[in-house]
Amino acid sequence: MSTPNPLTWARDHAPVLADLTDEFREERPFEGLTVAICSHLEASTGVFVETIHAGGAECLVAPSEPKSTHADVIDHLDSREGIRTFAEPDMSDRAFERAQSDLLAERPDLIADDACELIARAHASHPDAVEEAIGGVEQTTAGVRRLEAIDADAGLGFPAYGVNDTPMKRCFDNVHGTGESSLVNVAQITNTALSGKTVVVGGYGHCGRGIARKARGLGARTVVTEVDPRKALEAHMDGHLALSMAEAAEIGDLFVPSTGSRDVIRRAHFERMRDGAQLANAGHFDVEIAVDDLEAMAERTTEPIAGVTRYHLPDGRRLDLLTEGRLVNLTGPNSKGHPIEVMDTTFAMMAVALRELAVGERPEPGVHAVPDRLDREVADRKLAAVGGSRDDLTAKQEAYLSDWALDGEAF
Amino acid sequence: MSTPNPLTWARDHAPVLADLTDEFREERPFEGLTVAICSHLEASTGVFVETIHAGGAECLVAPSEPKSTHADVIDHLDSREGIRTFAEPDMSDRAFERAQSDLLAERPDLIADDACELIARAHASHPDAVEEAIGGVEQTTAGVRRLEAIDADAGLGFPAYGVNDTPMKRCFDNVHGTGESSLVNVAQITNTALSGKTVVVGGYGHCGRGIARKARGLGARTVVTEVDPRKALEAHMDGHLALSMAEAAEIGDLFVPSTGSRDVIRRAHFERMRDGAQLANAGHFDVEIAVDDLEAMAERTTEPIAGVTRYHLPDGRRLDLLTEGRLVNLTGPNSKGHPIEVMDTTFAMMAVALRELAVGERPEPGVHAVPDRLDREVADRKLAAVGGSRDDLTAKQEAYLSDWALDGEAF
Amino acid sequence: MSTPNPLTWARDHAPVLADLTDEFREERPFEGLTVAICSHLEASTGVFVETIHAGGAECLVAPSEPKSTHADVIDHLDSREGIRTFAEPDMSDRAFERAQSDLLAERPDLIADDACELIARAHASHPDAVEEAIGGVEQTTAGVRRLEAIDADAGLGFPAYGVNDTPMKRCFDNVHGTGESSLVNVAQITNTALSGKTVVVGGYGHCGRGIARKARGLGARTVVTEVDPRKALEAHMDGHLALSMAEAAEIGDLFVPSTGSRDVIRRAHFERMRDGAQLANAGHFDVEIAVDDLEAMAERTTEPIAGVTRYHLPDGRRLDLLTEGRLVNLTGPNSKGHPIEVMDTTFAMMAVALRELAVGERPEPGVHAVPDRLDREVADRKLAAVGGSRDDLTAKQEAYLSDWALDGEAF
Amino acid sequence: MSTPNPLTWARDHAPVLADLTDEFREERPFEGLTVAICSHLEASTGVFVETIHAGGAECLVAPSEPKSTHADVIDHLDSREGIRTFAEPDMSDRAFERAQSDLLAERPDLIADDACELIARAHASHPDAVEEAIGGVEQTTAGVRRLEAIDADAGLGFPAYGVNDTPMKRCFDNVHGTGESSLVNVAQITNTALSGKTVVVGGYGHCGRGIARKARGLGARTVVTEVDPRKALEAHMDGHLALSMAEAAEIGDLFVPSTGSRDVIRRAHFERMRDGAQLANAGHFDVEIAVDDLEAMAERTTEPIAGVTRYHLPDGRRLDLLTEGRLVNLTGPNSKGHPIEVMDTTFAMMAVALRELAVGERPEPGVHAVPDRLDREVADRKLAAVGGSRDDLTAKQEAYLSDWALDGEAF
Repeated sequence: MSTPNPLTWARDHAPVLADLTDEFREERPFEGLTVAICSHLEASTGVFVETIHAGGAECLVAPSEPKSTHADVIDHLDSREGIRTFAEPDMSDRAFERAQSDLLAERPDLIADDACELIARAHASHPDAVEEAIGGVEQTTAGVRRLEAIDADAGLGFPAYGVNDTPMKRCFDNVHGTGESSLVNVAQITNTALSGKTVVVGGYGHCGRGIARKARGLGARTVVTEVDPRKALEAHMDGHLALSMAEAAEIGDLFVPSTGSRDVIRRAHFERMRDGAQLANAGHFDVEIAVDDLEAMAERTTEPIAGVTRYHLPDGRRLDLLTEGRLVNLTGPNSKGHPIEVMDTTFAMMAVALRELAVGERPEPGVHAVPDRLDREVADRKLAAVGGSRDDLTAKQEAYLSDWALDGEAF
Repeated sequence: MSTPNPLTWARDHAPVLADLTDEFREERPFEGLTVAICSHLEASTGVFVETIHAGGAECLVAPSEPKSTHADVIDHLDSREGIRTFAEPDMSDRAFERAQSDLLAERPDLIADDACELIARAHASHPDAVEEAIGGVEQTTAGVRRLEAIDADAGLGFPAYGVNDTPMKRCFDNVHGTGESSLVNVAQITNTALSGKTVVVGGYGHCGRGIARKARGLGARTVVTEVDPRKALEAHMDGHLALSMAEAAEIGDLFVPSTGSRDVIRRAHFERMRDGAQLANAGHFDVEIAVDDLEAMAERTTEPIAGVTRYHLPDGRRLDLLTEGRLVNLTGPNSKGHPIEVMDTTFAMMAVALRELAVGERPEPGVHAVPDRLDREVADRKLAAVGGSRDDLTAKQEAYLSDWALDGEAF
Repeated sequence: MSTPNPLTWARDHAPVLADLTDEFREERPFEGLTVAICSHLEASTGVFVETIHAGGAECLVAPSEPKSTHADVIDHLDSREGIRTFAEPDMSDRAFERAQSDLLAERPDLIADDACELIARAHASHPDAVEEAIGGVEQTTAGVRRLEAIDADAGLGFPAYGVNDTPMKRCFDNVHGTGESSLVNVAQITNTALSGKTVVVGGYGHCGRGIARKARGLGARTVVTEVDPRKALEAHMDGHLALSMAEAAEIGDLFVPSTGSRDVIRRAHFERMRDGAQLANAGHFDVEIAVDDLEAMAERTTEPIAGVTRYHLPDGRRLDLLTEGRLVNLTGPNSKGHPIEVMDTTFAMMAVALRELAVGERPEPGVHAVPDRLDREVADRKLAAVGGSRDDLTAKQEAYLSDWALDGEAF
Repeated sequence: MSTPNPLTWARDHAPVLADLTDEFREERPFEGLTVAICSHLEASTGVFVETIHAGGAECLVAPSEPKSTHADVIDHLDSREGIRTFAEPDMSDRAFERAQSDLLAERPDLIADDACELIARAHASHPDAVEEAIGGVEQTTAGVRRLEAIDADAGLGFPAYGVNDTPMKRCFDNVHGTGESSLVNVAQITNTALSGKTVVVGGYGHCGRGIARKARGLGARTVVTEVDPRKALEAHMDGHLALSMAEAAEIGDLFVPSTGSRDVIRRAHFERMRDGAQLANAGHFDVEIAVDDLEAMAERTTEPIAGVTRYHLPDGRRLDLLTEGRLVNLTGPNSKGHPIEVMDTTFAMMAVALRELAVGERPEPGVHAVPDRLDREVADRKLAAVGGSRDDLTAKQEAYLSDWALDGEAF
């Protein structure tokens, strides 16, 4: 039995990227361009890098998280001409920042970003990189918000597509990618059942509703906390219990925030939790759960099982924090990140958005919505890949939908 | 045992309207104004009418569907001073149109519309009514599209709020109202089980996904047809089978279109269906299922059970059309329309939008989105009414969410 | 459009009875026998009667509930030679009892019973009917329990098959029939949504788990009360909240007992309920909800909507009892009972059990389990009818499953 | 941060074993007895061993699977006086068999078995061990069947309780333990999504329905294959597609058999599968998927990702077998077996059954059902541990349930 390259499995489950790779190899949209790619460096990112590379680009690759890099993936990428990585497995924060700076010193033409890491850093301290770049694309909710903040503040130096805000990204990556892989990783790390648990989901955005719906589908009782009353009510009508976090803290067995905000679970909540409550972050960075508060409250910590930090509180209660409050689906002992099929869609959106910036009509500097036709293009490719079908509007239907007088039945 | 008035039950289950009624009685926002209300004339509409009436309005009430009027409701409304109805149970199409014209001859100040019935008719043939009106509000998808078409064509004569497009309307009325009541009425009319059936849902908009999710929750196998590849893929990832209607036609036991379009199920599809297939419209009007095609194809029709027209095809197959292809949740032998709690939310949105037009800052003529604060207001009232809670953003969170440099951690 | 006979629709959705009817017409298993049939007299019972009649029986038909008889069904049955009904729509308790006695005076050979109504009455006061009968079949949980009690007490006078205890009956009729139709009728009667409600299900037997699972599938939050700790835990692991009724009383919006016991919801519980709580019996008879307690506690009653009795308590709270505490899926203003496909299975089990008593090897007097081969026969007929398939064991698999030494891999 | 012993985490999530440990320490039911324990040697088994040890037993511990032993667990157990393990991580089949023989040479008084490994081996080749033993308990479906086969064949030499057949075992371990952990491990090993997949579940027993229901809850489309038409129909009514495996083979993305039989998926099925189909065994041993057929059909194999063997067929199709066809939830690269809370229940049943054999009234040699009161005892302990409640029957209810004349309402 021989061992194929580390991207084989991911490539097999990424049919849209495979499609685009074939096309890009023919059409060479990135000929002569340098493309920076910042992302969690696991196998599906590797397939994305190879897709862009097939389009003629020189690829520069940096991690978006210091701890989530897979060694075999970067070794494989570095072995290919025209791809350079700026990464090592398990980097210090300092090394991580330096790697991004080193990459930016190369002044890439296009930036495929994650959490706006590279673009924010460029605007903060690499003005020459900002000047050189002709465009960027961004895959996360937090990253798009950050892009908008940069643009509102000092002005963005080039056009950037908010890939995160496309239907294809939000509905697949967030709902299904984060939703499923967060729960799978919690189950795998803790070796406890979701069935029968009371799961408190922080936030009912795309990620949160994916988590909540799937946890319920597995047999959990679900509680949703929200700041938006509409989303709280939606959760209520979908069969979840809509509570404040202070109320939820008292009844939850497992807490999974994914709001994009910070301190969603904090001292006031830790104080009310049951002995043995589990805390797993499915949002961004490591700020949704106020780990500082836990550190301040605890007498000591232990590691009862790999991937879990146990905070022993003075009153005897123990709170179990998974993966240090970092993303539970990416940073656990055996985590593999989002399911590959989901990353296929997200990276395909990133790829066509990059292609648009390279060879399409380039918009003004600032944050832009990805043109709807690109979203549809990726959707149609994916739908065909999964064996689904759809209808086309008939001429009569198109006329009907645009005719206010309702098909000639005037009064 | 005494029989209370026909609105008691609806009022008991409409806590937000009850809230607003108390406030309106105090504040009299509609003092001196005439408000036209066009809707299915059942008990929850009656509660809405009384809410507006409590705010000081003279109310003129017309049906939005010729067959869905409840006699006891209009009797009750007519018995109150300041309310006039233009309706009878089971009207002919001609009487229905005349009733709307009669109402418009009164030149109301504000119009609360359904499917743009009154506003379209006013623009088509009652220019004086258009001129007199100071604003309108519209509760359906089709109606808002029609408003936009009027505006794009000849220009809308006054400002109109598209209540349908608010989160509160779409997520509650469409997903849960149409979703649940359509299925309940199919089960009630046919006395057959949804468990074990293959249910084909036409369209995966708000209504369609409500129907599909609930049918699946009851134990049906679900097929979704779509024209948008993103929605088709969403359906696929949600566990439904994404097919073209031609493919779905061959395997479905029950077909429920709710696309807002016409001829979603037509001759080409009828030709492939199984003997005994059931057809129930949950969209709008009676156009989603091409009844004309059925009429043309059938040798004869029978009524095997109340509410079902059976089309006997020459090849021996029988297709069972519910409620003549009209809305199954409104026009069945014992249909009561949307659940009251859902109508509470929709009508509360209509009420605060009318209040905004009456006493707020009135926008330019044209179609306008309902201000988000109104949507939040209704959501907060409803959330309190159902016993739910939510969080408020802390100052630190608000700062975090607006600060691109991410809490001072600059580079 | 002509109106076919009242059984057409039911017959179309009862493929197994249709199958058996064809076979019985050929084989005449009941030639020369009189068969008493006691059941809710609606269309699917009518199809069952015709099935037995096709087998050569003279059929005597009595209702099992005084209020659930459909006039058109008994008119149709009475019009056929060899069928006699002892029923009228809406009978008094006294007329109902007399009808059963009149039927028993005919001393039928076989009795197809519901809730052991006829058989218990025969043993209590019609010794000649007991002596004459060669066997009985019983379709309900309560009825089988009652049969066993008679047998333990004075001894059953003839063999009786407990059809209720077959897999086919319990898993289909109880889980899906009661489960779905109870919820549909609650929704239809109250015109309120199940989505968002807290539904308290009394009992987690076959009926209870059907109700609980389907309510959850529609978007309700579900609470289960049980007396068996295993079933309480199962409910907990399935995502329901396992509480005592006293605890559940405080948080429920809708209460649906189906335990087969009495006073499952009683004064102690009514005292803790919220204003507006809805009570719907899905168990048996009218004893699961202690209506006497409600009567004693209330100052007065009203009927806010057809099918609902509102009990006004002295402290201002109102409790809404559906269909007088009788079976909600059978006795509502527009109730049609169990879905027909489900009754098809139950009545097919009754039919083959009757056939076994008529032409098979008749067992000793007493309560007997239906032979497994009959259950499989009906299951295979139904599976084919719904278009499903199954595997057969291979010879190798059969050997494996019976060989403890595990396929020769000895130690 | 210190590292606690390897059983800490499991003990924290096994409240019933913790309860029993406290009681056993007091009551010493196993004083002077040697208890053999055969099971997958992971942390929760360790807690079970310590529970029995606390009751005064000398414990002898052997693995039930050669590859699933955790080194830290056996190191920990061996460090305690009165516990001896006969295991190493990753044993050869030969070493595995020898370990069991070595254990049996010690002639234990009681045997807690898994898959009847020790008891079958004793009856096959250790007659002295059979003679010495006073009883056994068995936790798996296959094991109980094997016990019955031994008893039917040569006669069982001592009484054995079929713990597997208790409600507590079947409903929790099988439905939730196997159900959830199989899916979690498939997702973790393959890094692909269950949402959107077509999952074919072989068998609709307790395990199969757990897998099917949870896969559906996560957003998969589900197909069930069965040999029993009742179970096939149940699956159909629960919303799964009931097909033969030959039909299912053509549409499945993932195949998960858990029937307890062999060759459930075999050459005839592999020939029809799609390129990239995934095969994961959730039944017993490694016989549900006919790996021999795969070996015979394939040109070569690769390992595209850890835990997956890829069979390259001559026609270009690739079939991906997880964990060599062994139990996917136990033998994957990072598998941890059943969730701990579920093992808590199973092992607690084993513990009270052992206690019954040690200090209760010992039944005749042969296979016996565990007395219902023991099942209830464990259920009540667990229900209290998870914070659930239940009702007790009132005297009036007990009378009602045993009184055929229905509470004195005689005729």
